[in-house]
Amino acid sequence: MIDRLIAKIEACGAPIAVGLDPVMDMIPDRIKKRNIEEHGLSLKAAAAALLDFNKEIIDCIWDIAPAVKPQIAMYERFGPEGVAAYAETAAYAKTKGMIVIGDVKRGDIASTAEAYAAHIGGVIFEGVAFDPWHADAVTLNPYMGADAIKPFVEVCLSHDKGIFILVKTSNPSSSEIQDITLAPCGKTVFEHVAGLVSSWGEGAMGTQGYSKVAAVVGATFAEQGTALRKSMPHTFFLIPGYGAQGATGKDIRDFFDSDGRGCLVNSSRGIISAWRTRPCHGDRVGEAAREAAMRMAKDLKL
Amino acid sequence: MIDRLIAKIEACGAPIAVGLDPVMDMIPDRIKKRNIEEHGLSLKAAAAALLDFNKEIIDCIWDIAPAVKPQIAMYERFGPEGVAAYAETAAYAKTKGMIVIGDVKRGDIASTAEAYAAHIGGVIFEGVAFDPWHADAVTLNPYMGADAIKPFVEVCLSHDKGIFILVKTSNPSSSEIQDITLAPCGKTVFEHVAGLVSSWGEGAMGTQGYSKVAAVVGATFAEQGTALRKSMPHTFFLIPGYGAQGATGKDIRDFFDSDGRGCLVNSSRGIISAWRTRPCHGDRVGEAAREAAMRMAKDLKL
Repeated sequence: MIDRLIAKIEACGAPIAVGLDPVMDMIPDRIKKRNIEEHGLSLKAAAAALLDFNKEIIDCIWDIAPAVKPQIAMYERFGPEGVAAYAETAAYAKTKGMIVIGDVKRGDIASTAEAYAAHIGGVIFEGVAFDPWHADAVTLNPYMGADAIKPFVEVCLSHDKGIFILVKTSNPSSSEIQDITLAPCGKTVFEHVAGLVSSWGEGAMGTQGYSKVAAVVGATFAEQGTALRKSMPHTFFLIPGYGAQGATGKDIRDFFDSDGRGCLVNSSRGIISAWRTRPCHGDRVGEAAREAAMRMAKDLKL
Repeated sequence: MIDRLIAKIEACGAPIAVGLDPVMDMIPDRIKKRNIEEHGLSLKAAAAALLDFNKEIIDCIWDIAPAVKPQIAMYERFGPEGVAAYAETAAYAKTKGMIVIGDVKRGDIASTAEAYAAHIGGVIFEGVAFDPWHADAVTLNPYMGADAIKPFVEVCLSHDKGIFILVKTSNPSSSEIQDITLAPCGKTVFEHVAGLVSSWGEGAMGTQGYSKVAAVVGATFAEQGTALRKSMPHTFFLIPGYGAQGATGKDIRDFFDSDGRGCLVNSSRGIISAWRTRPCHGDRVGEAAREAAMRMAKDLKL
């Protein structure tokens, strides 16, 4: 998966993940209205609106953005119907050849982690294999330690999939736990986690110098990200916090390796909600998203 | 919610949560066969088997166990169809008057946390309120700090719901992060998180001395749990790790307060898979679960 992601980034010429994290006020009335007419004022209508919105975006960015990163919370909000729209979004993006990173941030132990690993490995029921989630990779939370991660590493190996483990997140309160210094080693919690992530990834290297076990490193902490690039030379970074959260291409320049590789930068609102901030697009969601993605690609090259 | 939980524990006479975490080899062939006949060899059949299995258990324990704790991973494994079975399980347990704790261990920031908070607060779509998940409380992961927790605390207040935040988990590798000592304060990571959980809960007290913001404290670490009871006198504990993970009633005696309150102890396999370890029950899942729950209640009283 990590090799496929790197190849796809090179083919598109930009390390962009489009965060498909729709909220209802981002979705044009025409899409909501059509689905309420079809399904009634119901969670099914809400879920169908999310999916239709995502399809308009995917149709316009699949050739210039290597990956989508749907945030499952935005779908779980609408119950099981919403969750189905998440899976259908992933399936649709894959038909267009995109890499799908399920932003699920799961973290649980042993047999539970094995169950969650179905997000990338699928499931076998009565001898038949199913892949209900259609994801190439997922994000994971490391708070419970290796027990929560190892079952996913096994699937990375057996199914050529990837995982992105939270190391330093982009939100302000990430400092409450992640930035505290640990007495035994003098490292911060996130630096300690970075070491664990590197070691978990050693047995899952791709052919391009990066492991299938990757990290989430927020764009909003430039100094920490730069230091992590040095301490984690074989760990690919998924970078949230670009755009709407305030970071620019300049802030994250040193998160990349000396060949300009090693990162995938996510933008959600900045791309999927671009039609609302640029009135010239009317409610042509996809057209505005494409223009925003192209602006982002240019910013990342500067 | 915390007051309702405490009242329900007193009415049932035992602080038991039944962990509805089914895996396929716990489910009798008659249930799987019936659903495959009805739905074909499909994820729909798998999901329907999970739900039927859970209903047999709920029908036999609703009057002696105050709560169920379905682990959503066991349902997510089977895709969106499985997730629907999770929600239907919760809805069914509520029709029997049980408290439902969704074991989702979500943890994400800001607008994403707000979306996840639909697990307890429901969602409003075009002015209409929906409650797709039917949970009284959920479990949460604190790694991202207050940003991941605050939106849930608000729902605890506005909707009388509860949250259980991971403090010290029951798995062996929990020590990799949670047990390390922090330099500034000399506390371990989990002790530091315990302090955060206490402070997040101060504004959400129930009337019985406990906050709606509660903690997950594993039964497998007796010393730490005993210390946490002292340092968190107003924090209710959800205790995994009893039974199949090795802990007994004796190990967790000091997790309770001096009135014998303040804890809800979860058992999953020990109850829902009891029919397989006690052949006298045949495949009468519910009967075996009831007997196991009664044994557990007795053990917790010793």
